[in-house]
Amino acid sequence: MEVFAQGLGLGFTIRALRGCPKFKKLSIHTMQRRPFLAGLGATAAALGSSAWAKQESGRKLGWALVGLGSLSKNQLAPALAKTTHSRLAAIVTGTPAKAAEWQKQYGIPDSHVYNYENFDRIVDNPDVDVVYVVLPNSMHEEFTIRAAKAGKHVFCEKPMANTAEECRRMIEAVKSAGKQLGIGYRCQFEPHHVECMRLAREKVFGELKFIEAGFGFQAGDPAQWRLRKSLAGGGALMDVGIYAIQACRYLTGEEPVEIVAQETKTDPVKFAEVDETISCSMKFPSGLLASLMTTYAFNGSNFFTAIGQGGRFGLEAAYGYGGQKGWSSQPGVKIEFPATDHFAVEMDLFSRAILDGKPFAPAGEEGLKDLLVIEAIYRSIREGKAVAVETV
Amino acid sequence: MEVFAQGLGLGFTIRALRGCPKFKKLSIHTMQRRPFLAGLGATAAALGSSAWAKQESGRKLGWALVGLGSLSKNQLAPALAKTTHSRLAAIVTGTPAKAAEWQKQYGIPDSHVYNYENFDRIVDNPDVDVVYVVLPNSMHEEFTIRAAKAGKHVFCEKPMANTAEECRRMIEAVKSAGKQLGIGYRCQFEPHHVECMRLAREKVFGELKFIEAGFGFQAGDPAQWRLRKSLAGGGALMDVGIYAIQACRYLTGEEPVEIVAQETKTDPVKFAEVDETISCSMKFPSGLLASLMTTYAFNGSNFFTAIGQGGRFGLEAAYGYGGQKGWSSQPGVKIEFPATDHFAVEMDLFSRAILDGKPFAPAGEEGLKDLLVIEAIYRSIREGKAVAVETV
Repeated sequence: MEVFAQGLGLGFTIRALRGCPKFKKLSIHTMQRRPFLAGLGATAAALGSSAWAKQESGRKLGWALVGLGSLSKNQLAPALAKTTHSRLAAIVTGTPAKAAEWQKQYGIPDSHVYNYENFDRIVDNPDVDVVYVVLPNSMHEEFTIRAAKAGKHVFCEKPMANTAEECRRMIEAVKSAGKQLGIGYRCQFEPHHVECMRLAREKVFGELKFIEAGFGFQAGDPAQWRLRKSLAGGGALMDVGIYAIQACRYLTGEEPVEIVAQETKTDPVKFAEVDETISCSMKFPSGLLASLMTTYAFNGSNFFTAIGQGGRFGLEAAYGYGGQKGWSSQPGVKIEFPATDHFAVEMDLFSRAILDGKPFAPAGEEGLKDLLVIEAIYRSIREGKAVAVETV
Repeated sequence: MEVFAQGLGLGFTIRALRGCPKFKKLSIHTMQRRPFLAGLGATAAALGSSAWAKQESGRKLGWALVGLGSLSKNQLAPALAKTTHSRLAAIVTGTPAKAAEWQKQYGIPDSHVYNYENFDRIVDNPDVDVVYVVLPNSMHEEFTIRAAKAGKHVFCEKPMANTAEECRRMIEAVKSAGKQLGIGYRCQFEPHHVECMRLAREKVFGELKFIEAGFGFQAGDPAQWRLRKSLAGGGALMDVGIYAIQACRYLTGEEPVEIVAQETKTDPVKFAEVDETISCSMKFPSGLLASLMTTYAFNGSNFFTAIGQGGRFGLEAAYGYGGQKGWSSQPGVKIEFPATDHFAVEMDLFSRAILDGKPFAPAGEEGLKDLLVIEAIYRSIREGKAVAVETV
């Protein structure tokens, strides 16, 4: 697995997985330097529709956010304001009150506001280059395919979809449209993670022999969509366990071949529809085993530990939006970087890939690979046996 | 599971698992205070057989070490010299050169030296109260039963035997002889472990929800008995994985009911006969899952982490002979104790239980329970499916 990422506004192409120090230095530098454009919304609000379309043009691609939940509100919109090549161009929501609130805050004209029914009209909006699908998992396929049919590039939140089959259809649709499909795996650009990939690849701690990884949290509101199978597809595994799967995959650079998994449900009422806590073991082609856990029932697991022949290294608070903490058993190896805005980085790298006409990764195939692992874990639990992971 | 342990030379009985602070304070204090009796060997060497028998009598029980490998040489003999109620009384070895060396060092008369053939004559030696079986695992059953038939109490190294069936015969034999059978689970008396048991039992971090535990090391010499199935019964799991099993069991106070496990063998030549690296997940009656790993292929895993609703705690360098390091997510909860001699403590507590006529724990049933877990792990690997753990 190799990820080619484009430098942030600096016109160079790097291989993030090879951990080119220049990339880290420059990209972080760029992120730090760029002030939060707090005044933008108020200014834009005073402008009409065509002015809105024009003012942020140039090299900035227009992004439409589909789904205005907390991720869009608290992370993506503020992050877009920090980017170099991206801007908030349109919103798609089923809630008129949310639309009004966003229009006011970001000065979005009526012509750039869609709902789930009239979304397809976005085909006629040249301001929108990218559609970012931030909906509940079960709606990812539909809106990715509709966006592709509308001639837009698609950026899709993780998990890419509820099933591998859905992923395959999404990949095909975007490919047919001649557009790009990126998946929101922000950790793949986060400097602590990138550095750990380098440590693994360059065998700084020798050949990797074992990985422990876990991510979970105590899901609060019992009414949230994450706990509804029809919307989320699954529970903790699909929502946060996927980060631990990602870590195992990008640290090894391999795809797991065999999985055994076990589930527990200590609150069968709250988690009646989706998985609560899962523990599993995955075998990779090199012989490495990875132990993975995920949960919606409690806080406290948010890490990976990689054990090599020559020592150990890992991250704590590994998968949050910021505040990663690296450690290693070698006093000379520090894993310490300034915080970045994960969302600003991933969106701008996607924009930059499109502007440069270069393929972006992680693309749809990466999302598909995780779904194949997730499906194998669920299958192992259901059948009570070791299962092979299907291949792409 | 409750362990009643006897205070070291202080005549009080405590419940180690309830973490009575007095126990910890006093026992550590006692261990620290007792000087290493370095001069004992040289002095005793100058005495004849009957003097040897007499000089360390009184409240000191005589221990016979069966098997003079590195554990006996580097840990047990030095540890016996630090005890209050125990003393080295006899040795049993198949190697005359070793016998000579030990006789010289510890002043052991010919009458107190046995080999594996004439071992049963120990029945006639009133100096020997306890036989400590320190042989390769496959010989534990035979020598435990022979020792019991010779009217001796038996202390047996972990793993108690190769199979649960052997454990059951050992328990029956020692019971029939009206003697006690203790298993060498030194961590059950180690202050850091005892404190973690207390934190778990008293729910200082809330109800335990998940445990991660691992112990492994890189097995050096490819010719060692540990890598021969006929002698060791199994590999890393039986030798060191058992510590992680113990931790999961004594932190929860429960027996696992279902297990899924996976094995990898990256060096099929060196580990042709025994397991190299295993990862598994265990479900407990309360719904808690534990993730466990063990290996003979690499260093770097020697820990447990317990995650409760209110935070995390654990040990690093958890299972070594000394140097345990505790940590917790609550700044106010420190897990820090002076080092103890694990072997001196466990042997003296066994002696003390016998002197007081009280049952010692961990006894044979505890060893049996671990073998039932070990057998379930191997069965899960062999059959590639989730298996139930057999009950005692």
